[in-house]
Amino acid sequence: MEPTLDELRVRVDSSLDRYLPPESQWPSRVHAAMRYSIFAGGKRIRPLLCLAAAHAVGGPSGRDRAEAFACAVELIHTFSLIHDDLPSMDDDDLRRGRPTCHKAFDEATAILAGDALQTLAFEIIASGDGASSRSGVVLEALVVLARACGTAGLIGGQMDDLKYEGVQALPEDLERIHRTKTGALIVATVVGGGLLAGASTDQALALRAYAEPIGLAFQIVDDILDVSGDAGTLGKTPGKDQLAGKATWVALHGLEASKRQATALHAQAEEALSGFGPEAARLRDLASRIIHRAS
Amino acid sequence: MEPTLDELRVRVDSSLDRYLPPESQWPSRVHAAMRYSIFAGGKRIRPLLCLAAAHAVGGPSGRDRAEAFACAVELIHTFSLIHDDLPSMDDDDLRRGRPTCHKAFDEATAILAGDALQTLAFEIIASGDGASSRSGVVLEALVVLARACGTAGLIGGQMDDLKYEGVQALPEDLERIHRTKTGALIVATVVGGGLLAGASTDQALALRAYAEPIGLAFQIVDDILDVSGDAGTLGKTPGKDQLAGKATWVALHGLEASKRQATALHAQAEEALSGFGPEAARLRDLASRIIHRAS
Repeated sequence: MEPTLDELRVRVDSSLDRYLPPESQWPSRVHAAMRYSIFAGGKRIRPLLCLAAAHAVGGPSGRDRAEAFACAVELIHTFSLIHDDLPSMDDDDLRRGRPTCHKAFDEATAILAGDALQTLAFEIIASGDGASSRSGVVLEALVVLARACGTAGLIGGQMDDLKYEGVQALPEDLERIHRTKTGALIVATVVGGGLLAGASTDQALALRAYAEPIGLAFQIVDDILDVSGDAGTLGKTPGKDQLAGKATWVALHGLEASKRQATALHAQAEEALSGFGPEAARLRDLASRIIHRAS
Repeated sequence: MEPTLDELRVRVDSSLDRYLPPESQWPSRVHAAMRYSIFAGGKRIRPLLCLAAAHAVGGPSGRDRAEAFACAVELIHTFSLIHDDLPSMDDDDLRRGRPTCHKAFDEATAILAGDALQTLAFEIIASGDGASSRSGVVLEALVVLARACGTAGLIGGQMDDLKYEGVQALPEDLERIHRTKTGALIVATVVGGGLLAGASTDQALALRAYAEPIGLAFQIVDDILDVSGDAGTLGKTPGKDQLAGKATWVALHGLEASKRQATALHAQAEEALSGFGPEAARLRDLASRIIHRAS
């Protein structure tokens, strides 16, 4: 029996637990902060996308080869959340209903915990099980992730996001922010997972064509939930982005158009998978969950 | 004619210029901040150590193979300086006589510039010239650098350094801080350079035995200069660390004992190179410059 998505999520959590140094180990305060933010109830969408892409290409053994990379992407994602929440950035006190890292610890610890999560991400990719026996593709996947994380990806997106706080963004500006700040890492997790499982060039292109609309739709749905979601389910106050004067998809395009666009992007992602058979069932399932989620 | 150390430093600067995205490229503010801090008059000691180690093992062609790694180490070093200078960390306004990154730009930009320098470091190692044709050793060197940068290395050292501000540190605490915050990256740059140039296990061990005392001595000399250096030459106010209540080698051991220990560590590093011939001349030269420097 193949594991369900819920079972895979439990496996991801236990791998993350194995990769993160224990709190008892020096320097324990920064290890505690890293663990606090990693085990804060994340849905592990990115690692699951990675594992699903690897499975679509290489079956269960392909998925095993992507395990370290899947966890590394979650470390990068969490690092970016910790830094984005800092007082000099988005200045958020709560994330998923709990105090943000710099509130639970302090600002210096939060900065260092984020830094260390980034470092650890690259370390576990490069030193993961069997990495040395297939080092060429591991390096290739590492570069994909580094580019998605860097100034052409999420770091650039966060810089832009801050720039447009309280400034009128054009639709193309907002699309660039969403594609870099959110989309790039989603594309990298899917493409990297596929590469590590042995994707051909055509398969890697199909995975990218799946991940790009999903990445953008992910953030459009986020913006929709910000105005129409339920506070309890979301774990944050709806309307927060609008109040902060942040550019959102809904503010620029309206609620109904945003919903239609998310649906259209979903169809585009489905279409990109047409060359895959049932081995891509999890990728289809995840796309549907991302579009129809309530939190 | 082999290039002199000064000529190599010029080459490192031009490689760094090539690796860093231009300021004209989106997102230009963060690219400007990265460049501001990278081109702030650093002495490039770490890249030079890396190139010297690679040369000791593999001659000029070994050195060429370590070029991306040498630059990556400088990016990691600069990232750590930018974050250490932040208000919530050491709260420094000046570095090398110029405003620190968060003073010249702003805090958010400085955090993101540091983050991006770390990402870029791993990207350029993994995608450097010829990386794919010798991917095994590139991964190995990347892991060496990641471990030196992580919580067991410079991030842990910075966490500890903050913890002991205004708190009495024991000599063993301070040695741990120096070995992690400063020493680990120096060891990684020397060992990584050697590995990329094809070092045997024995050669890698000898390089480590050279780099460990040099890494500790580097920081002891820093502490000596903090009390006896000249403000103009140093580019910072002498006595600053003492005033900030920071643990320093001189405060714990006294000036004369600190000087004797630096000299003894220098001898230890020289001894570790006894198996190398004239091809290690640059490593010897750099050790001597590190011990006898005035800034």
